[in-house]
Amino acid sequence: MNKFVWPVRVYHEDTDGGGVVYYANYLKFMERARTELLRFYGIEQTLLKQEYNIIFVVRQLTVEYLKPAFFNDLLNVVADTTKQGKVSLTMEHQILRDDEILCSGDVKIASINSITYRPQPLPATVINQMRTKCKS
Amino acid sequence: MNKFVWPVRVYHEDTDGGGVVYYANYLKFMERARTELLRFYGIEQTLLKQEYNIIFVVRQLTVEYLKPAFFNDLLNVVADTTKQGKVSLTMEHQILRDDEILCSGDVKIASINSITYRPQPLPATVINQMRTKCKS
Amino acid sequence: MNKFVWPVRVYHEDTDGGGVVYYANYLKFMERARTELLRFYGIEQTLLKQEYNIIFVVRQLTVEYLKPAFFNDLLNVVADTTKQGKVSLTMEHQILRDDEILCSGDVKIASINSITYRPQPLPATVINQMRTKCKS
Amino acid sequence: MNKFVWPVRVYHEDTDGGGVVYYANYLKFMERARTELLRFYGIEQTLLKQEYNIIFVVRQLTVEYLKPAFFNDLLNVVADTTKQGKVSLTMEHQILRDDEILCSGDVKIASINSITYRPQPLPATVINQMRTKCKS
Repeated sequence: MNKFVWPVRVYHEDTDGGGVVYYANYLKFMERARTELLRFYGIEQTLLKQEYNIIFVVRQLTVEYLKPAFFNDLLNVVADTTKQGKVSLTMEHQILRDDEILCSGDVKIASINSITYRPQPLPATVINQMRTKCKS
Repeated sequence: MNKFVWPVRVYHEDTDGGGVVYYANYLKFMERARTELLRFYGIEQTLLKQEYNIIFVVRQLTVEYLKPAFFNDLLNVVADTTKQGKVSLTMEHQILRDDEILCSGDVKIASINSITYRPQPLPATVINQMRTKCKS
Repeated sequence: MNKFVWPVRVYHEDTDGGGVVYYANYLKFMERARTELLRFYGIEQTLLKQEYNIIFVVRQLTVEYLKPAFFNDLLNVVADTTKQGKVSLTMEHQILRDDEILCSGDVKIASINSITYRPQPLPATVINQMRTKCKS
Repeated sequence: MNKFVWPVRVYHEDTDGGGVVYYANYLKFMERARTELLRFYGIEQTLLKQEYNIIFVVRQLTVEYLKPAFFNDLLNVVADTTKQGKVSLTMEHQILRDDEILCSGDVKIASINSITYRPQPLPATVINQMRTKCKS
């Protein structure tokens, strides 16, 4: 099965004085790919918030940094849903330059209410949208 | 008259691959100093939002970059209110390392409603708080 | 004549607690478009640095913020070279959502030596690359 | 034994449209505390680079996000060295608001050469500086 891949170009904003991408900025790249994967599933976070007051927040994060990315690199960011519950999702990411994995990350995301910040189950229609796409 | 000064240390997050502070990040430093100047006036933005639905947004910005700041520099950021209306403020900033001005900026800020994003006059009590402190 | 336009999607990383794009982050969008415009001219900053020790830094900046951009917006960022000297460039930017200008900015950029941080003229070949493309 | 604590104020730059601190930005707070802990040990990264060509990079990261931090929060960031080798350090962080832990993180850091990006052992004097301070 093919995995979802989102291309990301490295700009000056992403690098630090060490000449490489700043360690927190890889998390931005992973989140861009996650957002686009959700969009590919047919899930627009703007609508989730408007219609259900649901926002996603990160609960847990594990990242391995293997090799640095540099200014101007064209990276591929893989996003893959590995677990899918009613109030949480687990996603796996790899960030690649050509065939080389520079960075990998596991991210556990919770579905919460945007006002109370308490867990709120995803609507059944949204879960079904994800299941259908994940299997295909 | 003494001007309000806020110290800012430069960390890796602030620099880019050129080895200097990234040009957009000086704006973060200026905004930190503005936030602290408002706090010095007795104005807490959290309360402005809760009580009046007022948030501040930047309308106009002019920045001159004279010399670069580097990792580990301890900077002083000056914030000074130069104009003060009911729905807008103008602030002047200088960013200094020792006696040297690295960067200066003029920022025009508007008071808007946090829901409609339309201009909303600052309450008289807030304007008075600023006036009293500015004169002193 | 058509202007160079670079699309930018707004992600969570770009927004702030006011629910809109943080004012300093529009500068990142403008710089992405500038980088891609230079690439369109055939100018790779990585090579400029390796071969000539030249990096670009921003000297002056004027920005007008007209309307806010929100999470998930797909923006178009215009980059246009309006002046072109041996040691400096002036670029104009507009950031649009559909036909609406949200933000405009003039940026003066200097060509400096990456070690001494002093002005260094762009090589004639680079200036010619820009001129040829600008006229077309 | 007392742990090293560094205060961090949350500004608009740190928050996102969800109204809370953006998940990647907690890593910036942890890194500020790490930088200041190293300074407390007597280790200036600027000198490490100038004298030994050594920079620190993050190899591995685990973060738990328990509760959100908001604009204007005054946080305390704990930094503690839990393992200390010749080419790597492990640090533990907690981010607190009053007595409440909002976020905790384990970070494994490597000492590398700033030119080759390969592991480079810390000089004995630096290791001794850390040992002396850690015991006290």
